Amino acid sequence: MKEVRIGLVGTGYIGRCHAIAYAQAPTVFPLKGIIVKEMLAEINEDLAEKKAKDFGFTRFTADWHQLVSDPRIDVVDICVPNFLHKEVAIEAIKHGKHVYSEKPLALTAADAAEMVAAAKKANVKTLVGFNYMKNPAAQLARQIIENGEIGEIVHFYGTHNEDYLASPQTPIDWHCKKALAGLGALGDLAAHIVNMAHYLIGNIREVAGDMQTVIAERPDPQAPSKRAKVENEDQASALIRFESGVMGVIETSRIASGCKMGLTYVVTGTKGSITYTQERMAELKLYRHDEPVERQGFKTILVGPSHPDYAPFCVSAGHGFGFNDQKTIEIRDLINGIAAGDKLWPDFEEGLRVSKVLEAIAQSAQERRWVQL
Amino acid sequence: MKEVRIGLVGTGYIGRCHAIAYAQAPTVFPLKGIIVKEMLAEINEDLAEKKAKDFGFTRFTADWHQLVSDPRIDVVDICVPNFLHKEVAIEAIKHGKHVYSEKPLALTAADAAEMVAAAKKANVKTLVGFNYMKNPAAQLARQIIENGEIGEIVHFYGTHNEDYLASPQTPIDWHCKKALAGLGALGDLAAHIVNMAHYLIGNIREVAGDMQTVIAERPDPQAPSKRAKVENEDQASALIRFESGVMGVIETSRIASGCKMGLTYVVTGTKGSITYTQERMAELKLYRHDEPVERQGFKTILVGPSHPDYAPFCVSAGHGFGFNDQKTIEIRDLINGIAAGDKLWPDFEEGLRVSKVLEAIAQSAQERRWVQL
Amino acid sequence: MKEVRIGLVGTGYIGRCHAIAYAQAPTVFPLKGIIVKEMLAEINEDLAEKKAKDFGFTRFTADWHQLVSDPRIDVVDICVPNFLHKEVAIEAIKHGKHVYSEKPLALTAADAAEMVAAAKKANVKTLVGFNYMKNPAAQLARQIIENGEIGEIVHFYGTHNEDYLASPQTPIDWHCKKALAGLGALGDLAAHIVNMAHYLIGNIREVAGDMQTVIAERPDPQAPSKRAKVENEDQASALIRFESGVMGVIETSRIASGCKMGLTYVVTGTKGSITYTQERMAELKLYRHDEPVERQGFKTILVGPSHPDYAPFCVSAGHGFGFNDQKTIEIRDLINGIAAGDKLWPDFEEGLRVSKVLEAIAQSAQERRWVQL
Amino acid sequence: MKEVRIGLVGTGYIGRCHAIAYAQAPTVFPLKGIIVKEMLAEINEDLAEKKAKDFGFTRFTADWHQLVSDPRIDVVDICVPNFLHKEVAIEAIKHGKHVYSEKPLALTAADAAEMVAAAKKANVKTLVGFNYMKNPAAQLARQIIENGEIGEIVHFYGTHNEDYLASPQTPIDWHCKKALAGLGALGDLAAHIVNMAHYLIGNIREVAGDMQTVIAERPDPQAPSKRAKVENEDQASALIRFESGVMGVIETSRIASGCKMGLTYVVTGTKGSITYTQERMAELKLYRHDEPVERQGFKTILVGPSHPDYAPFCVSAGHGFGFNDQKTIEIRDLINGIAAGDKLWPDFEEGLRVSKVLEAIAQSAQERRWVQL
Repeated sequence: MKEVRIGLVGTGYIGRCHAIAYAQAPTVFPLKGIIVKEMLAEINEDLAEKKAKDFGFTRFTADWHQLVSDPRIDVVDICVPNFLHKEVAIEAIKHGKHVYSEKPLALTAADAAEMVAAAKKANVKTLVGFNYMKNPAAQLARQIIENGEIGEIVHFYGTHNEDYLASPQTPIDWHCKKALAGLGALGDLAAHIVNMAHYLIGNIREVAGDMQTVIAERPDPQAPSKRAKVENEDQASALIRFESGVMGVIETSRIASGCKMGLTYVVTGTKGSITYTQERMAELKLYRHDEPVERQGFKTILVGPSHPDYAPFCVSAGHGFGFNDQKTIEIRDLINGIAAGDKLWPDFEEGLRVSKVLEAIAQSAQERRWVQL
Repeated sequence: MKEVRIGLVGTGYIGRCHAIAYAQAPTVFPLKGIIVKEMLAEINEDLAEKKAKDFGFTRFTADWHQLVSDPRIDVVDICVPNFLHKEVAIEAIKHGKHVYSEKPLALTAADAAEMVAAAKKANVKTLVGFNYMKNPAAQLARQIIENGEIGEIVHFYGTHNEDYLASPQTPIDWHCKKALAGLGALGDLAAHIVNMAHYLIGNIREVAGDMQTVIAERPDPQAPSKRAKVENEDQASALIRFESGVMGVIETSRIASGCKMGLTYVVTGTKGSITYTQERMAELKLYRHDEPVERQGFKTILVGPSHPDYAPFCVSAGHGFGFNDQKTIEIRDLINGIAAGDKLWPDFEEGLRVSKVLEAIAQSAQERRWVQL
Repeated sequence: MKEVRIGLVGTGYIGRCHAIAYAQAPTVFPLKGIIVKEMLAEINEDLAEKKAKDFGFTRFTADWHQLVSDPRIDVVDICVPNFLHKEVAIEAIKHGKHVYSEKPLALTAADAAEMVAAAKKANVKTLVGFNYMKNPAAQLARQIIENGEIGEIVHFYGTHNEDYLASPQTPIDWHCKKALAGLGALGDLAAHIVNMAHYLIGNIREVAGDMQTVIAERPDPQAPSKRAKVENEDQASALIRFESGVMGVIETSRIASGCKMGLTYVVTGTKGSITYTQERMAELKLYRHDEPVERQGFKTILVGPSHPDYAPFCVSAGHGFGFNDQKTIEIRDLINGIAAGDKLWPDFEEGLRVSKVLEAIAQSAQERRWVQL
Repeated sequence: MKEVRIGLVGTGYIGRCHAIAYAQAPTVFPLKGIIVKEMLAEINEDLAEKKAKDFGFTRFTADWHQLVSDPRIDVVDICVPNFLHKEVAIEAIKHGKHVYSEKPLALTAADAAEMVAAAKKANVKTLVGFNYMKNPAAQLARQIIENGEIGEIVHFYGTHNEDYLASPQTPIDWHCKKALAGLGALGDLAAHIVNMAHYLIGNIREVAGDMQTVIAERPDPQAPSKRAKVENEDQASALIRFESGVMGVIETSRIASGCKMGLTYVVTGTKGSITYTQERMAELKLYRHDEPVERQGFKTILVGPSHPDYAPFCVSAGHGFGFNDQKTIEIRDLINGIAAGDKLWPDFEEGLRVSKVLEAIAQSAQERRWVQL
């Protein structure tokens, strides 16, 4: 079986999730390739060495340029801060590497477009870490829609709300800086729900958005007595129209008190509807309008081995499903895509498509008009 | 104690609810006036007689003009089809009657404005049947907001979704006809959530809307083989900004499969949030961000005697609260307003304000631009 | 139509609920008799007069003996403290009155048996106020069971838990005194869930119980520095077997922190199951095992006009249902039973049967063995 | 760092979960020992070889005797069918191996007692796979109880219900055979909830049980036209008293239609209560009675990095937690216990204590009397 040699760049929060998934994947799935944790890169030698040991990588470096040019690397896995995604990806592609990047693909759609072009030219494979669509519940939602079980789709409502900046006393951090984060809640959070909308319903044609920086200034952690300016939006909402004509609304917020993992969606069709919240990631609610009126109601389906990609984790239904398990499915896709040519999606093109939607919302909010995609 | 002599015009679905509330109110509340069920009007003599007996009204008539001009009537209670609200109200006001009208106040904001002007000129009292804001849970929500328990408000999301026209096979009815209903889901349903937004957050300053007639034609009940044109929107969504600058979204649908009584709201503040769905009308969820992080979470509060207007119905908490109970609170307000001068709200001015918001959404959807109020 | 002349004895918490239901019933239902609020009795003349006015009763008295012997009374409605139920009922029966008594029927099964015997001898009609089984959701549960929709019943779990005495600092009151209340949580609360078990599954054959007075002493409201002895159980549990052989468990508590109206049941059958909690009295959850495994799940059914006894209150589904609405259905049964001979249930025999089960649980707990009924 | 060399016996359903956890653990946790997947045993050479490859074990064998006597094995991990637990464990202990066994420890308490004695004599370490108590939500529940946040505990209700044998048409399997499974639902499922009761509340002093084989015969998969006898209970219930005097009830069923992972508990105290269901394994509900009455209610706490053992999996709250993650915590305990002497619990003594409770319930059900432990 073919080896897939991974070069991991960045070992923070999400890099750690990738490492857990690399560890878990080969036992969970019968992969079509062998994962080789070849090398990782971190900001300095000591940390890199420690992380290589923690994550089981053979080699390490404090210079990511070395990693992306290493001949024994097949895939560069980008888990660095968002503002560096583009630079690392372009460089990796130059060296003919396949690239697996965390979301958002880049700080701007223009940057994302360059990445797509580079990957296309170099004919390398790409994958973006939109892990929530890998969840069995999300796959089940799509199956229900594709089967026509809820009829023709007439409406989509989706959110990605969290509350990590809900308190005005929370100090400023990189999320609030344009140069480091690009957009605010839109880039950090809404990327996921836009991807989910694409996955479940299809591409988006036009948007009318509104957005707001609610907390204009926050304590400066460097100078506690001072306050620093927040440079991007705390929350945004948009009316959307899909290419199919379906209406919808997308909302996002990083100050949504009480939402810890508020990726939610309601998909309405002529024959039924489904509702989902990521905070209960192991269940999906389904309503069928064609049941006798006296027995109609939302049914709570617990994901189990009869649903996509659950059985490899556990053969009993309702036993739960975790965040890292989603990432493990994503890694399965990555390995099977690289080693055996299985379809890799969401790829950089989807990452670009998502970026365009997010920028269109921001542009629409500024110009106060509908924006076409 | 002063008598308040009621003249009820219309005894269908909602007229019946009024009758139940008139029956219940004097036992539930220590009213400041005596309800006298003086006269009712229906489409023909026989039905009027039957209904007078069922509802306990002393006199009846098949001609509402007779009722509104009767000297022994103090309040005209309008439960006729929406397209007749204006005519009956204006005529009643001419005769110096106080008017209690079901929502929507009229088919258009222009009509509503005439009604407001007439009432003002005649110096009569008015009330509109936005009953959902009378619910103890809604009153509790407002109390929490006013107390500052969830900090400064930063976002409002509200819906009024139902599914009475979800199936494309459901025959056309008056809801779908402009001459009889005016707007579609906006007029029939969204009126409630706009009023609730006003009640909880304040007045709305501007909107950007989208709307859609999803099922363009429906079976004609008169001619089963034919299909008749649907003349107004099945669903609508709007970005909104309150006068205070608070951002929000309002959605409405009459084809929202699975929503039986989908009046819902999420109010987010800098210190917490509240969520509510009318389908569980006896509970409110409250989140406080200032609790220790390891004990944060949404709390499900069951309404009870420590909350507004619940104790008169039942002295034990969590024993439930019903649809007609809301209407009973509304009747209490009506009687105390007429007999003792207590504040009457939502009055015709609020009815007009709601109509303006609904029309602004429809206009915005057609002109594809933000519309100011 | 025949008049049914009511004599109400006691106008406290539950008497008030009766009054609300008498007021509401004739408008909600097409009754088979005319409710005449003839007379009420209270502890003194002044209170009786005030209550007669509040509740719309024609006459009043401070002496219930006068009421039960009044020739113009058809039904004596007993809402006095539990320890007086028997005395009032027996006296009323002596005068040939039909009797409608609140639960528990009496403080002991022996007393209840005397009441049953007296009613039988006098050939009067009886009804006990087990209102929770009148709820559309409970009627739906029974319908589902009777239809065989969940197969053969294999298990019942039921509770009636509240928390009105949860805090050890709550002063002692009549609930804790044997002479005034008889049993503790069993008599006050479990009576309802035992009746519900009878209604849904059938009669109980044997029990094995356990019970506990957790808070042995409570502050004495008369002498704040002293503590008074609690004389009956705070909580009880019982293994039960129905006559059909079905296994089950019943639990009750008045110190169940967090339970405001914790009447709940889970009924399991070979083909499905239903679960219910009175705190969400307008919904019932239904699971069908014969659905395809990948679409199995509990369905949340909102009560609506397609379910028993809901439509007279509201023609739209999911609009909610309140505590007093249950009582209104009970009053409908009372009037139709007295005026037109409709079946009256739960009658005194059922009240006695419930008392026997409760005493068997208490006896079993003391003797630490199974007790047959 | 010390190596901990694992010998895995059995690679079916639960063996696979162990393998996933071994793979994940070193990346998730900073372990105090190095996991060496030394050898596994399966029923034949081919399967053993395949599984060794799938699970990343170095060596394999078709003879578990060889594994338990291999000098390079430190811990024998027992994932074979229940009826073999004892034999494998005793043999492993003879060779001085530490033993990590799946639940139930043995088919009878007598067998479990032999295992405890053997382990004590050989001075080896032991661990039993009661993984549900490793869940952050369960650890949080215990923390809340230990902190006194819900006051003195007054009641425990716990279940472990599933529906894998709900349909009478489901063919007989090993679960139904005494020689292979010992007890029915009690042994297979209730073992978990009894352990949880011990963990949260303390040891159990006495029980009064009832049990039933509801489906007496099932289709014989070997001879489709015939029916085979079910030899153990489908469901059981028990009144329990803890050593502390706390009252409670435990129930278990393998025919509980709709319960996919029905491990649930309600713990009631004088100041509050907690409720939990494993089907929503990432949340715990907490009620505090000492909050102002108008703000009382159950709070839904989503597990996050402020709770025990969550942060190593994910640094964001509410992101979910999966079944295998529990097992990963268990493996962490195993490795740190063996390599560094950290406390190992639940050990064989706890496994024995659980077995004794289960047998006492069965004995009580047969003898229809309370049984002391």
